[in-house]
Amino acid sequence: IAKEVAKLLEMKAQLGEDEGKHKFVLKTPKGTRDYGPKQMAIREKAFNTIISCFKRHGAEVIDTPVFELKETLTGKYGEDSKLIYDLKDQGGELLSLRYDLTVPFARYLAMNKVTNMKRYHVAKVYRRDNPAMTRGRYREFYQCDFDIAGQFDPMIPDAECLKIVHEILSDLQLGDFVIKVNDRRILDGMFAVCGVPDSKFRTICSSVDKLDKVPWEEVRSEMVGEKGLSPEAADRIGEYVQLHGGLDLIERLLQDPKLSQNKLAKEGLGDMKLLFEYLTLFGITGKISFDLSLARGLDYYTGVIFEAVLLHQENEHVEEAVSVGSVAGGGRYDGLVGMFDPKGRKVPCVGVSIGIERIFSILEQKLEASEEKIRTTETQVLVASAQKKLLEERLKLISELWDAGIKAEMLYKKNPKLLNQLQYCEDTGIPLVAIVGEQELKDGVVKLRIVATREEVNVRRESLVEEIRIRTSQC
Amino acid sequence: IAKEVAKLLEMKAQLGEDEGKHKFVLKTPKGTRDYGPKQMAIREKAFNTIISCFKRHGAEVIDTPVFELKETLTGKYGEDSKLIYDLKDQGGELLSLRYDLTVPFARYLAMNKVTNMKRYHVAKVYRRDNPAMTRGRYREFYQCDFDIAGQFDPMIPDAECLKIVHEILSDLQLGDFVIKVNDRRILDGMFAVCGVPDSKFRTICSSVDKLDKVPWEEVRSEMVGEKGLSPEAADRIGEYVQLHGGLDLIERLLQDPKLSQNKLAKEGLGDMKLLFEYLTLFGITGKISFDLSLARGLDYYTGVIFEAVLLHQENEHVEEAVSVGSVAGGGRYDGLVGMFDPKGRKVPCVGVSIGIERIFSILEQKLEASEEKIRTTETQVLVASAQKKLLEERLKLISELWDAGIKAEMLYKKNPKLLNQLQYCEDTGIPLVAIVGEQELKDGVVKLRIVATREEVNVRRESLVEEIRIRTSQC
Repeated sequence: IAKEVAKLLEMKAQLGEDEGKHKFVLKTPKGTRDYGPKQMAIREKAFNTIISCFKRHGAEVIDTPVFELKETLTGKYGEDSKLIYDLKDQGGELLSLRYDLTVPFARYLAMNKVTNMKRYHVAKVYRRDNPAMTRGRYREFYQCDFDIAGQFDPMIPDAECLKIVHEILSDLQLGDFVIKVNDRRILDGMFAVCGVPDSKFRTICSSVDKLDKVPWEEVRSEMVGEKGLSPEAADRIGEYVQLHGGLDLIERLLQDPKLSQNKLAKEGLGDMKLLFEYLTLFGITGKISFDLSLARGLDYYTGVIFEAVLLHQENEHVEEAVSVGSVAGGGRYDGLVGMFDPKGRKVPCVGVSIGIERIFSILEQKLEASEEKIRTTETQVLVASAQKKLLEERLKLISELWDAGIKAEMLYKKNPKLLNQLQYCEDTGIPLVAIVGEQELKDGVVKLRIVATREEVNVRRESLVEEIRIRTSQC
Repeated sequence: IAKEVAKLLEMKAQLGEDEGKHKFVLKTPKGTRDYGPKQMAIREKAFNTIISCFKRHGAEVIDTPVFELKETLTGKYGEDSKLIYDLKDQGGELLSLRYDLTVPFARYLAMNKVTNMKRYHVAKVYRRDNPAMTRGRYREFYQCDFDIAGQFDPMIPDAECLKIVHEILSDLQLGDFVIKVNDRRILDGMFAVCGVPDSKFRTICSSVDKLDKVPWEEVRSEMVGEKGLSPEAADRIGEYVQLHGGLDLIERLLQDPKLSQNKLAKEGLGDMKLLFEYLTLFGITGKISFDLSLARGLDYYTGVIFEAVLLHQENEHVEEAVSVGSVAGGGRYDGLVGMFDPKGRKVPCVGVSIGIERIFSILEQKLEASEEKIRTTETQVLVASAQKKLLEERLKLISELWDAGIKAEMLYKKNPKLLNQLQYCEDTGIPLVAIVGEQELKDGVVKLRIVATREEVNVRRESLVEEIRIRTSQC
C-alpha cells in the first residue's frame, strides 16, 4: 500500500498545479525564483553595500554547508520548527536545509572551540512558509548576517549591531526607517509582574509578537481565550506593550514600582539605558525606538532584541508601494553555543540579520518604475569588422585584448554586418568598438569608435589597449 | 510499525557514527565542510580570478534555486542519477538538490524562452558520491560555469570556452596543465566503424571514460565481459583510443579509410579541424591535446567535449602533492534545452565548468606550506586609548571613522590595556592605531601609530580620515 500511495503521490506531483495539460511542469519550485541578469545586477549592488558595511566593522567571513544534521536544528526554533525542510532518507545521516545562519554559526563556534569572533555570512536559507513573493517572502532566500561572539563589556557589541543596521539602511537609501529595540529580560520581567505563570512566558511572548500585524484587542483575546491567561494579567500586559519611547521611557520604567522590583526587568532596563547612551554617542537615537511590544519569534534570544521597519516608501514612481514589514532584525543569544558544546560552555553572542529579499523587492520595483537602463555586462569593447572574411583577424585581436585584461566581445558570426555589430553595442551598452578592416590592417591601426558620440579615431595597434583603458576609466 | 521504525531510525541517526557516546554529534554532514576565515580568503581570491575571466568575456550572471522539481533533473545524468539528493516529501512538490548548473541553465532558457545568452553562474551543487575530501572531492561543492547559448557559426563559441579554461588555469598559477579535447560525434562514429551496436554506444562510452584512471586491458575486459562487446570490436576501439595529438592527427583521421566514411565522425573531425585553427589564432594549441580516449560521463553532450588536467604540482614545499585529476570540463549540449521546451525547440549550447574545490585544495596546501600570513579582515585602523575612562571618546571617534567609510575596529572593553590593543593589531594585521588620550583630546589631535614601524604622529582630528586613507592606500 505504501508503495502504491508513493506512486500516486509522485504522479500527482508530476501533474502539479498545471492540471496535467503538459508532459511536465516548466517552473521553479513553489516559493523560489530565478534571478536573471538584471535582477542579479540589482542584487549584487545591494550585497556590495551590505558586505562593505560588514567589512568596515572588521568582520571576517565564513561559510557553512547548506544542510546540517537534522538534530543540529532540532529544538532551536520553537513553533517554527515545522517549517524546516528535511532531506529524504537515502541512507546515511538525516539532514535538513538550514533555517537561518545563526544556528549553523553557533554550531561552528562550538565545533571549532572558538570563543571570540566577529564574522559575517551571506547565504541562502530555507523555510517551508507560505510564500508571498510580491512582498519579497520566499521559501529560499538570502540572509546577510553579522554576529559578534565573545565575553565583552555589556552593550558595546550590541550597540555596534544597531549602528550597522543604521548604516546599511541609510546606505541603501530605502527611505525613512525606525529600529525597534526591546530586551527579552524586560519582557520576561514584565510577564512576571503582570502575573503570567512561568510556563506561559514563551507562548504569551509569541502572542505579543503579533502586535505589529493585529490590534491589541485581538492579541488580548488570543491570550485569554486560546492561551488561558487571566483577563487581569492580559490587561496589565496591555498597558505595558503600548509603550514606546527613548531614554525618558527607560528612566520612567526604572522608577515603575512593580517592574523595578523584578530582577530580570531591572537588569534589562539597566542595559537598555547603557545601550541608549552608546547609541547617543553614535548619533543614531533619532531612529531608535524602545518598544515594549517587540517580542521576536525565535526561541534562542536571551537579551536585547531589535527589528528595523521601513516607515513608508520614498517612491513617487510606484503607484502602489510594496509593503515589506521588517527588513532587518536580531538580538542577543547567550545560550545557543552552549547547547552545542559537550560541556555546555557558553559563548555570548549578539547579531543582526539583514532581510535582503524584501529590500531587493523594493529596489527592483524602484528600478522598473524609473526606466533607468541597467548594464548586465562590463564589456568595454566590441571587436568588429567592416568587411567580410576578417573572422581570423577579429579572433587575433580579441585574443590580444583578453590577454591584456580588456573586457571584450565579438559576434559569433563569420561575416557579421557592421550595422548589426553597432546595434549590439547600443543594446548592451558597450561603449567602444574596435573595427578591423583591410586598410587598417595594412596601416597597422585599428579604428576605435566611441558608441555614444559616433566619433571614430585610428589608433596604432600597439597603443590600443592603453587607449581603451583611458577611454573606459571614466565610465 | 512504520512509526516505530521511523523512531528507531531517528534514534540510530542521532547516535550517528559516534557509537552513542555523546548526546549528539557535533559535525557537519558527511562530505561537507565549513570554510573558516582563512579558507574563505583563499576561496574568494580564486573566485575573483575566475569571475574576472568570465566578465572579461562579456558574460552576464544568473542565479537559480538550489533545488529543482525532481522531474527537471530526471533523465539528464545517465548512470549518475542515483547520486541526486532528494528532499523529503513533506507535502507539495517533489524536489531534488541540483546536481550541476547546466541542467538548471537549460531549464532557465526554456522557461524564459531565451534563445541567446552568454552567462556565468557560480554556485553550490550536490552529489551523494563517495567523498575524498583531501583530494577536494565533496558532496557539496562549488561549480563555476560559463556557457554560451545560441545558434552561431560553428566552433567560434567552442573555441572561446577553451580559451577561458586556458586563461583561468594560467591566472591561477597552478602549474602545467593540458586540456584534452574530443567530440561525441567522433566517438559515436568510431564506435560505429568498430562494430559496436547502436544500443551499446552509451555504455561503451562510459567504459572509455574510465581510461584516465584504469589501463586499457581492464577497460577492454569490462567491454567484453560485462557489456558483451565482441573482442574484435573492443580491439578496434583500443587502437583508436590510444591516439592523441594535434592538427596532424586530425588530418590523419580525416584520411582514415573507415572513419572518413562515417558521416558523424567526418562532421566531428571537420569541426575539430576548424576548432584547432581558431585555437592556433588564440595561441593556445601548446596546451591542447586532441585525445580519442576522452569520453566524459554525462548523457547530454552532443559535440565537442573537453577536460583540463593538471600535469604535476609546482609545489616544492609540499612533500606529498595532492592528486586532483580534472580541474575543469565541459562541452557542447545542443539537445538539452529542447528537452524542456514544450515544443522541443532546440537552443544549441556549449559551456565549461571549473572545479573550484580541487583547485582550492591545491591553493590551501600551497598556502599552508608557504607559511605566508594571510589577513582575514580589511580593517585599516584600531581605535585605541592610552588611559582609562575613554570608552565614550573611542565610541565617538570610531563612529566618525565608520561614517567616513574607514574600516575601523575597537576592543569591546571599557578600559583595555594599550599593550593588548597593540597586540591585537599585530595578531590581525591592522596597519594603523588611532590613539585617543586626555592630552590629545585637549589639543584636538589623535595620535596615529604605524604598527609596522612603531612610528607615532599627531594628526589633527579633522585630517585624520584623509591621513588614514593616504597611509593605507599603499597596502
